[in-house]
Amino acid sequence: MSELSQDQLWMLQAVAEAGKAIYRTRPNPAVGCVIVRDHVIVGRGATAPVGGSHAEVFALREAGELARGATAYVTLEPCAHYGRTPPCAKALVNAGLAKVVIACSDPNPLVAGKGVQILRDAGIEVLTGVCEEQAAEQNKGFLKAMATGRPYVRLKVASSLDGRTAMASGESKWITGAQARSDVQHWRAISGAVITGIETVLADDCQLNVRALDAVEDISSVVQPVRIVLDRKGRLPFNAKLMEHPETLMVMGPYRQDLADAGVIQLEIQSLESLLSLLVREYQIYDVLVEAGATLSTAFLQQKQVDEMISYVAPTFLGQSARAMFNADFSRMAEQLRFKLVQVTQLGDDVRLKLIPFQESV
Amino acid sequence: MSELSQDQLWMLQAVAEAGKAIYRTRPNPAVGCVIVRDHVIVGRGATAPVGGSHAEVFALREAGELARGATAYVTLEPCAHYGRTPPCAKALVNAGLAKVVIACSDPNPLVAGKGVQILRDAGIEVLTGVCEEQAAEQNKGFLKAMATGRPYVRLKVASSLDGRTAMASGESKWITGAQARSDVQHWRAISGAVITGIETVLADDCQLNVRALDAVEDISSVVQPVRIVLDRKGRLPFNAKLMEHPETLMVMGPYRQDLADAGVIQLEIQSLESLLSLLVREYQIYDVLVEAGATLSTAFLQQKQVDEMISYVAPTFLGQSARAMFNADFSRMAEQLRFKLVQVTQLGDDVRLKLIPFQESV
Repeated sequence: MSELSQDQLWMLQAVAEAGKAIYRTRPNPAVGCVIVRDHVIVGRGATAPVGGSHAEVFALREAGELARGATAYVTLEPCAHYGRTPPCAKALVNAGLAKVVIACSDPNPLVAGKGVQILRDAGIEVLTGVCEEQAAEQNKGFLKAMATGRPYVRLKVASSLDGRTAMASGESKWITGAQARSDVQHWRAISGAVITGIETVLADDCQLNVRALDAVEDISSVVQPVRIVLDRKGRLPFNAKLMEHPETLMVMGPYRQDLADAGVIQLEIQSLESLLSLLVREYQIYDVLVEAGATLSTAFLQQKQVDEMISYVAPTFLGQSARAMFNADFSRMAEQLRFKLVQVTQLGDDVRLKLIPFQESV
Repeated sequence: MSELSQDQLWMLQAVAEAGKAIYRTRPNPAVGCVIVRDHVIVGRGATAPVGGSHAEVFALREAGELARGATAYVTLEPCAHYGRTPPCAKALVNAGLAKVVIACSDPNPLVAGKGVQILRDAGIEVLTGVCEEQAAEQNKGFLKAMATGRPYVRLKVASSLDGRTAMASGESKWITGAQARSDVQHWRAISGAVITGIETVLADDCQLNVRALDAVEDISSVVQPVRIVLDRKGRLPFNAKLMEHPETLMVMGPYRQDLADAGVIQLEIQSLESLLSLLVREYQIYDVLVEAGATLSTAFLQQKQVDEMISYVAPTFLGQSARAMFNADFSRMAEQLRFKLVQVTQLGDDVRLKLIPFQESV
């Protein structure tokens, strides 16, 4: 490990603060802040659940008078607008900070830099881009959505070593082990929505919610993702387990009065691309997890709607008549769908690969 | 990392000495020895190529009179028999060692313990089993073959994330990257034989020899593996690249006069199991690497003849009409062929998995 600067060291403490909040702030980004005076942390904070205060407010409150002349480390550019809370940039000015260090700039091109401007206009020294990568990792969806209007889409796949997901009969229990299956909960918990196809619902009667997280004691503090079922023929059974929580269920399919009566949000049938934009625009859903069968997963991949693939590989062979995980037909190597390997992690007897679509220009 | 005992620490130096010899001692095991006196190494050695001396001889020669009263660390029980060299156990006695620490016992049940007995009879303190696992890793084939009469069989496979090895047309270049392909050279270099099928030879005109190793400057110091082609119908082209080195080529198939004239060893058609026993019994081949297409690889797996699978996974999808890496047909999950994941390593953009067949009892 290379030597870190003091600013980097303190910013990593702010990143750690934000890390404690990642499951509970949606749709707001998880931001962390620490205030350092004479080489000691005198205040820390993270974004509260929606309607609560921003990270800076908590850190300033803890620091009190000690904030005067101190340095604040914030993982995201302090806000400059009056929203549910007064602008944090103003609060930092009023508290008399001498210096503010920022990891990520505001991703919205229309307001980026305004928070920094308020600070600089007040004579505060401002440094940006410190540990930007680590901080950006915590709010990938928010950052992408604010910048582009599109959510960050993760595709989860789980397969045998020979690329199969189930026997031809559909039998599929226990391909991956307990550790890999519980790891999936994390990806759901950081997502605003989990998208699946009707075939998966009919086969597994899945719930697709967050039931347990190693890092969280009280699961009710986690903002549950919306579950979105693509159901073009309107086949969702009214007694499906997904219907137990209609308040976090959306269905894209033909209009159904029974679903409307139950309070399920219904979406018009549209392309995946339009659906994804709609989720950002109308529902503040910035991180999407696709957990689906081969057909829908392949569609997301072929339509280039995947930002990241989380692939669990189980050390087993299911044989050539078992179901393929990816069901496009290619005849030439040039058509192959390549990824860049970002991370490899062993989870019990399984392996998790983090992959991003390969770009020739990278 | 946990604290090591001094004996473990010195034994790891002996293991490192053996490590320098792993590519050049076949069919002899690669053994390392260090002699320690007053906390300082005064002699070290590793097995020389066939016909040369054993590790202990080199270490004793370097230590000279300093060996008297010192401790020797040897990765394999010193030999007790007069073979190409006089017994090393005697040499250690004559040199006046006070203590001998051994990692692995002699794997041959008929002679195991004889080397230790000679040492103890001479009043030398003997300790065994120190860093046994690390030392055994260096001579897996030798240890297994001496104990059971069967070689250690590694199966190399390389596939896409969706479990494919080539397009339906056979097109297959560049599935894995340069780093993974060069890693294969190591496994060949520690093998007494590389087994392949005639289809692979006809498709790729492969050589299956060792051409470059990161750890070795002079590739001619590496004992090349014998290449074995399973060719039940006698289709091996006389001008195949494999024929360029007939002295390291064996063919299992119908008798051919042209191959006999060229000096190729021909083997009777027999089961994989008989072939493997024959390799140990007649040819002192203890480590076997299978590099073959799906049909032969699947046969090795289904006949339970694989001790370890080295699986390279490339981050790409080739689609469902591409060739499957494993072509057995299973209809129920209970038939699946499961492995235990031993090691995961990232090699460039690919992943290497080390797997051993899953035993219910483990």
